[in-house]
Amino acid sequence: MTDPERFAATPQPPYYAVIFSSQRSGADDEAYQAMAARLDELAARQPGFLGFESVRDASGFGVTVSYWASLDAIAHWKAEATHLQAQALGKGGWYTRFELRVSKVERAYGFGATPTTP
Amino acid sequence: MTDPERFAATPQPPYYAVIFSSQRSGADDEAYQAMAARLDELAARQPGFLGFESVRDASGFGVTVSYWASLDAIAHWKAEATHLQAQALGKGGWYTRFELRVSKVERAYGFGATPTTP
Repeated sequence: MTDPERFAATPQPPYYAVIFSSQRSGADDEAYQAMAARLDELAARQPGFLGFESVRDASGFGVTVSYWASLDAIAHWKAEATHLQAQALGKGGWYTRFELRVSKVERAYGFGATPTTP
Repeated sequence: MTDPERFAATPQPPYYAVIFSSQRSGADDEAYQAMAARLDELAARQPGFLGFESVRDASGFGVTVSYWASLDAIAHWKAEATHLQAQALGKGGWYTRFELRVSKVERAYGFGATPTTP
């Protein structure tokens, strides 16, 4: 039932979360998937990357939360990701809208397969 | 294309985000929908509630981010929501797993329908 791959294995707080909410335009799906895969690879290679959780429904609305050890790690990743995403927006118009929020996780707890973090 | 209802109209940071990632068990859908609707109403009535963004895919994995003016507002809401969710978990086993993270939004920007927040 539970797919552990969908949940990020984050450490004890504090750490950082980048909350990316977006509406896909529906255009150019294959190219979008390729760009998304490149962004995922890029994130996973960055120092300080802790994991991500991502979901998009059939309407094209999605939320992706990536977790990071520090603001420096986010800044470094953003410099590379922005370049790719700018190409994406310029070429494909892949999002009709997005909102990006950088936040500091102060508390966390869970229920289910893994040890909880009270 | 863009449904403005899916995006939360948040103010300039700082404010708080509660990131709730969950895997639905698939059990008891009608009762779950009723509970989810009650939780949404409850949140919207709370002082300091700023909005939420929520998405769940066909596999039952979902991310809901609710936005709050203060930690006090979250604590007040949590006291009521926990009661409902405890009933939910006890009665329905509606989630096989969840992770909840409380974070402070420090920066935000967007692209699309609304004025951006650089």
